[in-house]
Amino acid sequence: MSNTKPSLPKGTRDFGPVEMARRNYILETIKDTFRLFGFEQLETPAMENLSTLTGKYGDEGDQLLFKILNSGDYLKGVTIEEVAQGSSAILPKIAEKGLRYDLTVPFARFVVMNRNELVFPFKRFQIQPVWRADRPQRGRYREFYQCDADVVGTDSLVCEAEILLMIKRVFGAFGLTDYTIKINNRKILTGLAEFIGAPGKEQELCVSIDKLDKIGWEKVKGELLDRGFVADAIDKLAPIVRREEGLNADTLGFFREILGSSIVGSMGVDELSQVLDLLEAMGGDQSHVSFDPMLARGLSYYTGAIFEVKINNVSIGSVSGGGRYDNLTGVFGLPDVSGVGFSFGVDRIYDVLLELGLFGDVAAAPVDVLITHFGQQEMNYGLGILSELRALGISAEIYPDTSKIKKQFAYADKKNIPYVIVIGSEEMNSAKVTLKNLRSGEQHTDNLNKVCEVLVQKKRSPND
Amino acid sequence: MSNTKPSLPKGTRDFGPVEMARRNYILETIKDTFRLFGFEQLETPAMENLSTLTGKYGDEGDQLLFKILNSGDYLKGVTIEEVAQGSSAILPKIAEKGLRYDLTVPFARFVVMNRNELVFPFKRFQIQPVWRADRPQRGRYREFYQCDADVVGTDSLVCEAEILLMIKRVFGAFGLTDYTIKINNRKILTGLAEFIGAPGKEQELCVSIDKLDKIGWEKVKGELLDRGFVADAIDKLAPIVRREEGLNADTLGFFREILGSSIVGSMGVDELSQVLDLLEAMGGDQSHVSFDPMLARGLSYYTGAIFEVKINNVSIGSVSGGGRYDNLTGVFGLPDVSGVGFSFGVDRIYDVLLELGLFGDVAAAPVDVLITHFGQQEMNYGLGILSELRALGISAEIYPDTSKIKKQFAYADKKNIPYVIVIGSEEMNSAKVTLKNLRSGEQHTDNLNKVCEVLVQKKRSPND
Repeated sequence: MSNTKPSLPKGTRDFGPVEMARRNYILETIKDTFRLFGFEQLETPAMENLSTLTGKYGDEGDQLLFKILNSGDYLKGVTIEEVAQGSSAILPKIAEKGLRYDLTVPFARFVVMNRNELVFPFKRFQIQPVWRADRPQRGRYREFYQCDADVVGTDSLVCEAEILLMIKRVFGAFGLTDYTIKINNRKILTGLAEFIGAPGKEQELCVSIDKLDKIGWEKVKGELLDRGFVADAIDKLAPIVRREEGLNADTLGFFREILGSSIVGSMGVDELSQVLDLLEAMGGDQSHVSFDPMLARGLSYYTGAIFEVKINNVSIGSVSGGGRYDNLTGVFGLPDVSGVGFSFGVDRIYDVLLELGLFGDVAAAPVDVLITHFGQQEMNYGLGILSELRALGISAEIYPDTSKIKKQFAYADKKNIPYVIVIGSEEMNSAKVTLKNLRSGEQHTDNLNKVCEVLVQKKRSPND
Repeated sequence: MSNTKPSLPKGTRDFGPVEMARRNYILETIKDTFRLFGFEQLETPAMENLSTLTGKYGDEGDQLLFKILNSGDYLKGVTIEEVAQGSSAILPKIAEKGLRYDLTVPFARFVVMNRNELVFPFKRFQIQPVWRADRPQRGRYREFYQCDADVVGTDSLVCEAEILLMIKRVFGAFGLTDYTIKINNRKILTGLAEFIGAPGKEQELCVSIDKLDKIGWEKVKGELLDRGFVADAIDKLAPIVRREEGLNADTLGFFREILGSSIVGSMGVDELSQVLDLLEAMGGDQSHVSFDPMLARGLSYYTGAIFEVKINNVSIGSVSGGGRYDNLTGVFGLPDVSGVGFSFGVDRIYDVLLELGLFGDVAAAPVDVLITHFGQQEMNYGLGILSELRALGISAEIYPDTSKIKKQFAYADKKNIPYVIVIGSEEMNSAKVTLKNLRSGEQHTDNLNKVCEVLVQKKRSPND
């Protein structure tokens, strides 16, 4: 047995009680909304066959997959000659499984494997960790949670509008006010490529435009030239890219006009316009929602709507995103499954809420009250009180050892427990207890019933 | 890209909406109790350094660890000569991390790494999957959840009594009535070894006695002989082993007498007796709690109380277990941390509740109501209704496409949605909606306000 100081694998984290309370608050808020909108939960295994994962995330993604060594004598059947060819050559022989890289591919696999039992449209949400062998850095971990909702089996734009409603509901519940949901449509980008005389090149256009925020228009221009866009195309693009942000209706009008000769482009404008109409028909308004015709998210599989959420008063990049895809399951032999999905970036939302001080009392009181005592007899007396408190739903602890009262109070203090009940011989003899509010310092001695009333009341309205 | 039929790695499972609803019910019930008793949540990463995991679970456990191949060119620095020595020889060079095998070792690592920040006694619960490269079979998976609660940093027997209370509270909440919490104390087994004249051999005694339920006394006798227990020792053991189960007080009295000359044994009897007294002082009674002096759980690290829960009317083995240990963190260089822990067997509890029909309506209604419609106009009209329902906290969906009403009803039916709202031209013209209860077939047409009242009422008291 080793006796060295233990450590964590790099890029991974423990989540202690305070972090867990905050994370649970975020996840429960999101889950509540998912459920209200009719999404059902799915969980898939951490391990997938490498045949399921490989080739789905590009070459770079394949490199970032964590591979699991086959059990037992994994080198059996591998010859020395094969080993001599290197790591990649023997990989398929010694590792058949890998860790989940995202929640989309496992979801697609699930849909294909269960296509005959599932009811379509299928609305699922999934909240689980994923793993990537990325170089760890601030805000980038090798294990992190994803939090996805997708509807598959319908191309109804109601789904897009519901995504906007869900985002607004969740971010509103968090108390966030200064955020923007950027929305675009892949077809608008396709139309744009046609408009500037570079039809079919929207992929390259997207990749470059996606960097607009980071590197600015001049550098994007250079990149476009490198990618073979001619000067005339870039000239046509320039006024569009540099057009000032306006009302969604104005921007839509502008694009309806310039993309009038593009069938696909017009379709994109129509879809986006309908999504905004549906949003209003469903009782939402367009506050926080901004049509950004340059939004591309650099992802090749979106075919319709594209979403991205930014927090305007925190510098952290996008905190959520998603879009519509038309071929989620084609790679597993089931073509033409259209769907639209969205992912909340839990880690970044955590950082935002922390920075803006929006967690409030979320992690403040894991336990409502601690029973402290001056000796063995008092402790025994406290045991009965403990069960009465818990029967009322009051989360309660008794200090389990006969220690100095100061140590017991320090325990309550460090655990952020707001109240202590003190039991001394006086309390025992008078069949009363002393309740002390550790935050205000106030204390009073009363019958247990009265004290319970105070605690129940506090639990119901913690801010009174 | 592969285009073959996807599959799951053997021994792993997807959890669809119905399973997830049931699992969440189990886990939320347990979490509620943990929190009421002052336990706080911890989560640790799926991956641990192999130096943390190896050597903690015996040779067999080391074999069952899933190892993660190092990223990049994992064979770099490995010579052909080393490869020729086989799988085990190069393992430390090509894999530095493994998947969590249980929650206890990561917890011990966490305690050691955070010993200066933690407040002791530290009460943590942890609910996460673990992975074992075991041969899959019915009820045994390669990925499964563990659900642990531990208190470390105190040897107070209040903790043992609280474990009994928590088990009773959780199993009671599940509606289980015919279950037994077996309790024993490792010191009683030590005393027993002394009593039969085989001091220090309680480990071997435990391993054999542990099989009593499975193979019977005659075969256990044979095994004891093989393990070097003399006939005289076995003769002394026989009447104890075959003693009929009685009241806890009687069994305690019997053991207090026969172990009177063993200091450790007497201590064990005292501890157990105190735990039962504390249980009663805390408002619990001894129903479901049975002192089983033969309970050993075959685990070498228990030093005090040992717990195990069996469901008497379902043949499934133990569904939960735990005990006190005195050296959780010694292996990581932090000696003398005493703790007591308990683990709920979530997968088996799931099977038990399913077999006994105790899930009730848990997974019955993911969504309260589906809005169906006879055409595009009716659907648009329904969108406004949708948002009013959700604003009242009613989980609601609208069928997102203009399909035949029959198809929309089939969707509600397959998703187990109890109510549909039907919108036709008549409803639109009279500003009313039709609500149909899909279970009873009843339907009536009314103002939206009235219909909302019905749905809110049903949500509050689903069985009315």
